[in-house]
Amino acid sequence: MPSHESKRHARRRLALLRRIGRGDRARAAWITNPPDIRYLAGCREGAGGLLLLPGGGAVLFTSPMFEHTIRAAAPGVEVCVPGRAAPRAAAARLKTDGVRGALAFQEDTMRVSVARAFRQAMRGRRLVELGRAVAEERAVKDEAELALIRRCVRIAEAAFRGLLAGGARSALGRTEKDLAADLEYRMRRLGADRQAFPANGIIVAAGPGAADCHHEPTDRKVRAGEPLLFDWGAELDGYRCDITRTVFPREVPPEWRACYADVLRAHREAAARLRAGARCRAVHQAAVDVLKSAGRGPMRHGLGHGIGLEVHEAPGLGARPGKGRDARLRKNMVVTVEPGVYLDGKGGIRIEDDYLVTAGGAQRLTRLPQTLARAVLP
Amino acid sequence: MPSHESKRHARRRLALLRRIGRGDRARAAWITNPPDIRYLAGCREGAGGLLLLPGGGAVLFTSPMFEHTIRAAAPGVEVCVPGRAAPRAAAARLKTDGVRGALAFQEDTMRVSVARAFRQAMRGRRLVELGRAVAEERAVKDEAELALIRRCVRIAEAAFRGLLAGGARSALGRTEKDLAADLEYRMRRLGADRQAFPANGIIVAAGPGAADCHHEPTDRKVRAGEPLLFDWGAELDGYRCDITRTVFPREVPPEWRACYADVLRAHREAAARLRAGARCRAVHQAAVDVLKSAGRGPMRHGLGHGIGLEVHEAPGLGARPGKGRDARLRKNMVVTVEPGVYLDGKGGIRIEDDYLVTAGGAQRLTRLPQTLARAVLP
Repeated sequence: MPSHESKRHARRRLALLRRIGRGDRARAAWITNPPDIRYLAGCREGAGGLLLLPGGGAVLFTSPMFEHTIRAAAPGVEVCVPGRAAPRAAAARLKTDGVRGALAFQEDTMRVSVARAFRQAMRGRRLVELGRAVAEERAVKDEAELALIRRCVRIAEAAFRGLLAGGARSALGRTEKDLAADLEYRMRRLGADRQAFPANGIIVAAGPGAADCHHEPTDRKVRAGEPLLFDWGAELDGYRCDITRTVFPREVPPEWRACYADVLRAHREAAARLRAGARCRAVHQAAVDVLKSAGRGPMRHGLGHGIGLEVHEAPGLGARPGKGRDARLRKNMVVTVEPGVYLDGKGGIRIEDDYLVTAGGAQRLTRLPQTLARAVLP
Repeated sequence: MPSHESKRHARRRLALLRRIGRGDRARAAWITNPPDIRYLAGCREGAGGLLLLPGGGAVLFTSPMFEHTIRAAAPGVEVCVPGRAAPRAAAARLKTDGVRGALAFQEDTMRVSVARAFRQAMRGRRLVELGRAVAEERAVKDEAELALIRRCVRIAEAAFRGLLAGGARSALGRTEKDLAADLEYRMRRLGADRQAFPANGIIVAAGPGAADCHHEPTDRKVRAGEPLLFDWGAELDGYRCDITRTVFPREVPPEWRACYADVLRAHREAAARLRAGARCRAVHQAAVDVLKSAGRGPMRHGLGHGIGLEVHEAPGLGARPGKGRDARLRKNMVVTVEPGVYLDGKGGIRIEDDYLVTAGGAQRLTRLPQTLARAVLP
């Protein structure tokens, strides 16, 4: 890894320490959430914990199984192999270094048994919950992160165009599973590390399955007159994009045409509200209002979410975005906008794009056409 | 889902309730670990919790986003949509049903904040930790589970044979990423839902990367004279297999030939100890002893693990298998045996097969040849 990568991670550690050092809080931190460790030290997996020391130095605790890899992946930090006793080793290190005062840690995302062992190892030291500090740092992307997300978008879009190069009708008769496997393989041949959704993979839903927001592809074949929904993304160096398009392989039944128009209006209305300083909740509400006034009922999910090292990360664009009702967008956040309407037993429409929040608005990172006419023939 | 599936889940719930009802323990349980919910109710994701009632009845708590899917996936259980207040709704339900006494729950795998909210909702009721109860039930497979695992093995092996149909030398010059993507696509075209490893996917490691037990495929090209390691599996209806083969695209350097022979001896020595009643730790030790006496140093990981709804599940075949040092194999457990030797900077050898534990021994479920000679030309 080039040294400008190490410097980037060191800058992030310093920014985090500044954030948590405000007021009566901590000068050091114990990071255990894996994507947070990746963000702050560059190593992909296998670390039991990352100890951030005052000044930005850091010690990664790992097992013998990962030692070699982690040394290579995180050249800017110290590596320590204490076996399972990482919290005790971290406590000893803080003493050796003469670090006094509180230690911030991520109790909220720890399993109960791990939190208990950690508290025991750190006995005598004041512990404060890190809360959303790392999530809030991660929500604002730097240039390197934006470049990776843009590359993910290019790959995901090119793969989709390739998949439907013969027009949406070329999907007729193919199964959801077949289309999902093909789309993923195309993204990988275009350079993606993998598809972007760790839990259940790419969604391809033909007909009724499109009413299920997290549909898992089946052997159902694509038929004319039904919506065909794709929700997919590419992952590269840990970063990812997240796109949804709903197409119709041949004719578009009038009821779906009307539904598509409502979802697209909701999407555009909400996207027009994106800008640094906007309330996350208000952006969500803009889409909800459009769908409500069109008689489409309540939306089943939040309007969108941040993307980066995780497919769902801060900020949340929903009725309850994070802890505060007043969470606001900041410049260089990257968020999805993905309103949807679902008709159980029939299908659904969702249109999702990724946006970079700017001072005066937002830049759409995805470039696939949004309109139904062009979605039929990409 | 056919009704014999519902009956199977009901049987599993009853077996679990019997297990936790022994002695002074609970008559009801609150299940939150997703693969455990899948095992006991059949639903794939989206459930906030599963309440097991005395007698084997069950209530699944979910959100509006998943309601329709969950009703379809889990026809044998009641579905309740309480929003985020699932623990409070569960507490109310226990009262309404007149269920007295302790409630078992999975605090150990809960996040601290979730455990806190749960304890608050259940105030006034004695709570007992479920511990390894579900893991121990899941470790022993029934016929339906075995059939799925066998199908995963068939798919994974056929895909591998197809990938190297031109002999191992046909991989020369291809990148690790390309081979991994190709192998996964082949498994999916053969009917797999996806590859089996949720965290980082299939491992393809050419040369030095094979020393990293969890290597992520890169753009490195396969070269002659270096080990080429594949660690892969197929997933079907939630179940999976897990196989590793190390091949040499052309000539086998003498040092690697000797290393391969040691790993194969360790594998066979350990596999010969598999049988119902054997100590997990002793099976692991058998492989460690072979490698030690061959001067290969300590093994970096446990010898193997159970496979099923998760790629790593009970029983663990390691120096510290689970909580007890005396954990023993039981009939119809399915475990991997996967000793490895790793030389940092050069590569590694690992040979992994899946075994079904029987009364008097074990049946190897994987059928790919194990020997180096045949591994070169599958």
